[in-house]
Amino acid sequence: MSASTPNKPAASASDVLALVNQLCLPLDAERVSLAEAGGRVLREPVGAPDDQPPFDRSSVDGFAVRQTDRASTFRIVDEIRAGDWKPRVLQPEEAVRMATGGALPGEGLRVVMKEDAQVEADRLTVLRHDDERHIRFRGEDARAGQVLVEVGAILSPGALALLASVGCARPLVTRLSRVRHIATGNEIVPPDQMPERGQIRDSNSTLVRAFLGQSGIEVEQLRAGEDKDAIQSAIANRQSPIDLLLISGGASVGEHDFTRQLLEEAGFTIHISKTTARPGKPLIVAQRGNTLAFGLPGNPLAHFVCLNLYVRAALEAFAGQSARTAFVPGALAADLATDGNTRETFWPARWLLQDGSVMLTPLRWSSSGDLTALATANALIRVTAGLEQFQRGSRVEFVRIERSS
Amino acid sequence: MSASTPNKPAASASDVLALVNQLCLPLDAERVSLAEAGGRVLREPVGAPDDQPPFDRSSVDGFAVRQTDRASTFRIVDEIRAGDWKPRVLQPEEAVRMATGGALPGEGLRVVMKEDAQVEADRLTVLRHDDERHIRFRGEDARAGQVLVEVGAILSPGALALLASVGCARPLVTRLSRVRHIATGNEIVPPDQMPERGQIRDSNSTLVRAFLGQSGIEVEQLRAGEDKDAIQSAIANRQSPIDLLLISGGASVGEHDFTRQLLEEAGFTIHISKTTARPGKPLIVAQRGNTLAFGLPGNPLAHFVCLNLYVRAALEAFAGQSARTAFVPGALAADLATDGNTRETFWPARWLLQDGSVMLTPLRWSSSGDLTALATANALIRVTAGLEQFQRGSRVEFVRIERSS
Repeated sequence: MSASTPNKPAASASDVLALVNQLCLPLDAERVSLAEAGGRVLREPVGAPDDQPPFDRSSVDGFAVRQTDRASTFRIVDEIRAGDWKPRVLQPEEAVRMATGGALPGEGLRVVMKEDAQVEADRLTVLRHDDERHIRFRGEDARAGQVLVEVGAILSPGALALLASVGCARPLVTRLSRVRHIATGNEIVPPDQMPERGQIRDSNSTLVRAFLGQSGIEVEQLRAGEDKDAIQSAIANRQSPIDLLLISGGASVGEHDFTRQLLEEAGFTIHISKTTARPGKPLIVAQRGNTLAFGLPGNPLAHFVCLNLYVRAALEAFAGQSARTAFVPGALAADLATDGNTRETFWPARWLLQDGSVMLTPLRWSSSGDLTALATANALIRVTAGLEQFQRGSRVEFVRIERSS
Repeated sequence: MSASTPNKPAASASDVLALVNQLCLPLDAERVSLAEAGGRVLREPVGAPDDQPPFDRSSVDGFAVRQTDRASTFRIVDEIRAGDWKPRVLQPEEAVRMATGGALPGEGLRVVMKEDAQVEADRLTVLRHDDERHIRFRGEDARAGQVLVEVGAILSPGALALLASVGCARPLVTRLSRVRHIATGNEIVPPDQMPERGQIRDSNSTLVRAFLGQSGIEVEQLRAGEDKDAIQSAIANRQSPIDLLLISGGASVGEHDFTRQLLEEAGFTIHISKTTARPGKPLIVAQRGNTLAFGLPGNPLAHFVCLNLYVRAALEAFAGQSARTAFVPGALAADLATDGNTRETFWPARWLLQDGSVMLTPLRWSSSGDLTALATANALIRVTAGLEQFQRGSRVEFVRIERSS
């Protein structure tokens, strides 16, 4: 370990989150097509360029007549299909055949539904006059200039459809974070390779790729063992600048755990070098210019927890997302024996809605390396340090680890 | 309308969902890499091929000694790093230097944490003997053969990491649904084009692409206006077989609404041609062989609702997902004036967790064409036909329209 940087006191999870939110500013914005904008964060408000809908439209197939005209027979004088623009002044007992979505020929009209009418050549017999006008009026959805999607919104499919409808075909969104990931450790082999005795398969690279993939981020990945030169070169590489550097493994205090030293040698300032939380005690948070680096514990469950708590926070802050992942209350669906550990614990769990309330089932884990809970985990419960046991039904805090949308 | 198929009675939303679940069987399974498997549904159980972890591993950096050896000084006889395999029998007052994750040299040992020890050359002084063994024991996470991920599970990042850890590098998953989408209607123009008077921008194509993109599906899309030949050819095309055909617009009863006729001409059996629900009355569900077709109402909000209710159900059934999207209870965060409509209504809403309970804010919509609610909608509330008003705090049923995971 470099003698130049004294050990900092261990940070709480809240400390780490506060630091990340302070260090990570929204990245540049860019204009992209609607096809690329899904899941991105909007960086300028999008308003209606004109009234929505922009003209009075028939909401049914039928016949436009004067609003007060209660005649029983009409003469069909024109036909308006969706897409047509045929203004005309309707006289009493005149009707215009309308398709759904067609622009009304004028004002002061209503539409008789096709189902309420009979037609013979150009003669229309109205069987029933109802009280509805069956018109979507100009501006009834939104007025010109009204803001429809706010800055900081994540562009869901529905929001993208709304942008399309108002002609915002290249929204201004935050660019994707550029991320490099280095998996270290001599003991890891690729998942498709049979480990020798003493070795294990690398699951962290798969986790990182899939986790970032949910945000549309394609990560540069390197499995570097303990090849110091390869790791140094991946950290230092300034040809392709990155926003976020993730290094898995090598973050504990052992002699072969040199993440911290390599980061310092590359000019990173170490802000945090361990946490009081478990799993995930050996965590490094470092910074060089606009690049944030995490040294993530190699143990897979600890790695998973740190990725979902801290790296997620960094990505949300980089994206400029207005609604951030946060701890919220829920109730335990089963007892949770915490063994009175003296460290704040993030416990993998499965949350679901039951009768309108959040119920959390804590999942079994034997150690910070135990991945079996990850088959179904979609939440992390925060267990305060020193608590012996939570009873079924107790209120706890948790964070959802699904992708927010 | 073809005279050959009599009009069927309007179907309820439940009828449509039941039919879709009956018609859509899980598609073929395929083996894909872990990089491609995110969000896919697993089709065979994945178990642990061997004990997890496969050998006793040190959970800390430190020194392995005999479990009962309480000496204060030891001789360091070897060093085991993660990835090494160096079995040996330890004698009293012998220690082996261990890195986190390293394989213990034998049984009946414990690990003294580095922090509790001092080292000078090969001489180890133990400052403190604690009660923990600091070992992750072989099989403590899972036993060989134990099922870790069940059939029907959606492969989240965590589940993928678990698969990687047990060497399941090419999981058997359901192949992606092959989907073609045809947007019809003479009134629509692409979102980046200025509509003429009487025209509107096509938002449905953007919605469909983004909606399917969330499931990793790349959809073939065609904006066909009312070009019957183009639509017929896109429907009939048997060169590239599809599982799901979506046709937007053209599903109401107007003369220019010929989806139904074209589907029949192409050999589809019409199962449903309208629903009792709103928005989304003019809905077609049809089938030819293994291809399911939906004629979706062109009005954007109705289109959104049908996509999120019925098309989602089809995709989940095709995928063989065990946990399907379902209506669950929640409480209203604001009054909901339903105007006593005689049709079951699906109301766009925003759900959030408040104090451990689901609170639903109904979003304003003026008509089945009103997209403004879609900026923030993440739920649909089911409002029973004929109900006049729900008070704030009332219990309602809703469905989440975020992608499940």
